[in-house]
Amino acid sequence: MVKSNLDLIDECDSFPYHQDDPAAYVTHMKKYHSFKVKGYSAVLGHILNEVVDRFDWPAESWVIDPTERTVTLIAGSTPEERNKVLDQTLELAVKQDRFEVLRGWRNEKYPIYGPNGEYLLELERSATPLFGIVSYGIHSTAYVEDDGGLKIWVPRRSKTKQTYPGMLDNTVAGGMTTGERPFECLVREAMEEASLPEDVVRANASAAGCVSYAYLRDSRAGGETDLVQAEVEYVYDIKLPADVVPKPNDTEVEEFCLLTVEDTKKALANREFKPNCAVVLIDFFVRHGILTAENEKDFLQIITRIHRRLEYPTASHVAK
Amino acid sequence: MVKSNLDLIDECDSFPYHQDDPAAYVTHMKKYHSFKVKGYSAVLGHILNEVVDRFDWPAESWVIDPTERTVTLIAGSTPEERNKVLDQTLELAVKQDRFEVLRGWRNEKYPIYGPNGEYLLELERSATPLFGIVSYGIHSTAYVEDDGGLKIWVPRRSKTKQTYPGMLDNTVAGGMTTGERPFECLVREAMEEASLPEDVVRANASAAGCVSYAYLRDSRAGGETDLVQAEVEYVYDIKLPADVVPKPNDTEVEEFCLLTVEDTKKALANREFKPNCAVVLIDFFVRHGILTAENEKDFLQIITRIHRRLEYPTASHVAK
Repeated sequence: MVKSNLDLIDECDSFPYHQDDPAAYVTHMKKYHSFKVKGYSAVLGHILNEVVDRFDWPAESWVIDPTERTVTLIAGSTPEERNKVLDQTLELAVKQDRFEVLRGWRNEKYPIYGPNGEYLLELERSATPLFGIVSYGIHSTAYVEDDGGLKIWVPRRSKTKQTYPGMLDNTVAGGMTTGERPFECLVREAMEEASLPEDVVRANASAAGCVSYAYLRDSRAGGETDLVQAEVEYVYDIKLPADVVPKPNDTEVEEFCLLTVEDTKKALANREFKPNCAVVLIDFFVRHGILTAENEKDFLQIITRIHRRLEYPTASHVAK
Repeated sequence: MVKSNLDLIDECDSFPYHQDDPAAYVTHMKKYHSFKVKGYSAVLGHILNEVVDRFDWPAESWVIDPTERTVTLIAGSTPEERNKVLDQTLELAVKQDRFEVLRGWRNEKYPIYGPNGEYLLELERSATPLFGIVSYGIHSTAYVEDDGGLKIWVPRRSKTKQTYPGMLDNTVAGGMTTGERPFECLVREAMEEASLPEDVVRANASAAGCVSYAYLRDSRAGGETDLVQAEVEYVYDIKLPADVVPKPNDTEVEEFCLLTVEDTKKALANREFKPNCAVVLIDFFVRHGILTAENEKDFLQIITRIHRRLEYPTASHVAK
C-alpha cells in the first residue's frame, strides 16, 4: 500500500501529543514511571510500569514511588558513580534475561543529559528504550547535482543486519556515543559506512539542523512494546562531486545506488526506507524545495512533527 | 543588552507550552474562550475572556457558553454566509471603538481553516489576535554568495510604518490573504517591497519549509495584551546574482543593505530585527550550516521552538 509522507512520519513519531487529546494522553502516561536522578527535578525518560516491575532495584541505590510513579536513582553524585550503579542494575537484568531488548546488547554507551544540557550519566544503547531516554545521532544525505537534476546516494542495509535488514537507509547515519560531538560522529561514520574520507566530508558536508520525534515502540521494533524511544538526529547534507562514489566499508551496507528524486519518492511511498531515514529524507526534500506547500497537502503537519519538542531535557553539544 | 538566539525566539514564541508546566498552562488557558464554528469540533482560535465580554454577540448568530468557555458561530453553513455575520459583528465593534487593535484596520482578509485544511471563513487582518486564529505569510531571505562568503539583503522598515518602525526586516515578507498561495504571495511581495521582478523570483527562489510559533501579545505589539497570535511563515531562500539589487518600491521600506553574516548576527543580538524576522534568519542560519550543534548551545531548543505544532487546525495550500 502506498504511504503518504505524513503516514511515514506517523510511523516514527507515534508517541501521543497532549494537545491532540488531553484525556487520552493523561491515560496513556499512566502506563509509565518517570525516570529521575537525585538532585534534579527533570524527568529524564519514561519507564513502562511493567518494566519497573521486572527490574530489581536495590533499595540503597533506587527509590521507586508507586504513587508518584517515579524511579529515582539516589546513589552517586557524579556521572562515574551513577554509571556504576546503573551498570550493576543492567548486568543483573541481562544475567536473568529479564528483557528481550537487552538480548541485542550493543556494548555502546549513550549519554543522558540534565536540564542545562549537562552530562549526567550513560546507558547501554540497547537499554535506552527501557528507560525511555532521548538518544542522539547523525543522519546525512549525500547527493550530486547536475543538468539532469538532483540525485541521492542511497545505501541498502545488509540482509544480515539485526535491525531493518535489507531496507534502504540514509547515505551515512549512526548513533552518538558519550563524549562524541555531531560532526565528529559524521566523520567517523562516513568512513565506516561509506568509505568517504575525512577531507571529502569536511569539504562537502554542511550542517542543516536536526529532526526529532518520539517513537512508541511497536512489534516492528522487536522486543517489548509501548517503550518510549525519543530521538534527535542531527542532519547534514553532503553535496558530492560526480567522481566521488560512496562504497561499503563494512558488512552493514550491501550497496550504494544513485537514485533520482522521483525514484527516492517512490521508494519512500513503498516503505522501502527504514522509518527514521524516511523522516530525514522528507526534511531534505522540504529544505531543498522539492516538497512545498503547493504540492504536499500535509506540509505544515510534516514540518512540525519532524521537529518535535521532546518532553525531556536535551543535550548541548557546543564545543568547549 | 545582547540577546541570545533563544532569547529572540522567546520573544516570538511566548505562548506557554503544556509540557513545561501543565498546571500553569491549565491556569493560563482559563483566560480564554475557544472559538468554534457550528459543525466543527475543532478549536479555531482562543479569545481572551475580556474580549468575549466586550463584543456584542447577537444571539441569532452566536452561542456563548460561559461554562465550557466557548464562542460558537452558529449562523451560516458556507464561508460566504459566515463571513457576512462576522463582518457585522466586527463592524459594530469598530463603530463603538471597543478594541484598540481594530483602530489599525487593514482592510485585508485573512482565512481561517478547518481540521482538513479547508477554508471555513475569513477575518479582517487587524482582528485576528482578538480571535486568536492562525495567520499565514511568506518570509524570504535574499542573499549573494561569492569568495567573500554569504551576504544577506536586509531592508530597514520605514520610520513612518505603523508597526516596528525603523527596524530591520527580511528581504521580502508579507501576509497571505484569502485565496492566495505562498509562492504567489512571494512573487507579489517581491515586486511590491523590493522591486524584484517575477522572472528573477521564479529563477532564483527556493522553498525551504516554514517556521511557526505562538505569540502572546504584550505591550510591544500595541493594543490589548494577552491576545494569542499564532503564525505560520513559509520561508524562501532567494540566491541572487551579484548584479541584482533589491530597491524599495513603496513607502514601507527605507533602504536595503547587504550585510555580512557577522553583521547580521550582531544586529540580531542587538534586537534590531523585527521579532519574527529574527526567527526566519535563525532558521536560515540553521539550514545553511551557520548555526550548528557545536556553536549554538540552544540548538535543539531553537529548532523545535521555531517549528511549533500549533493547537489549531492549519491550512493546506496545495494547488488544486
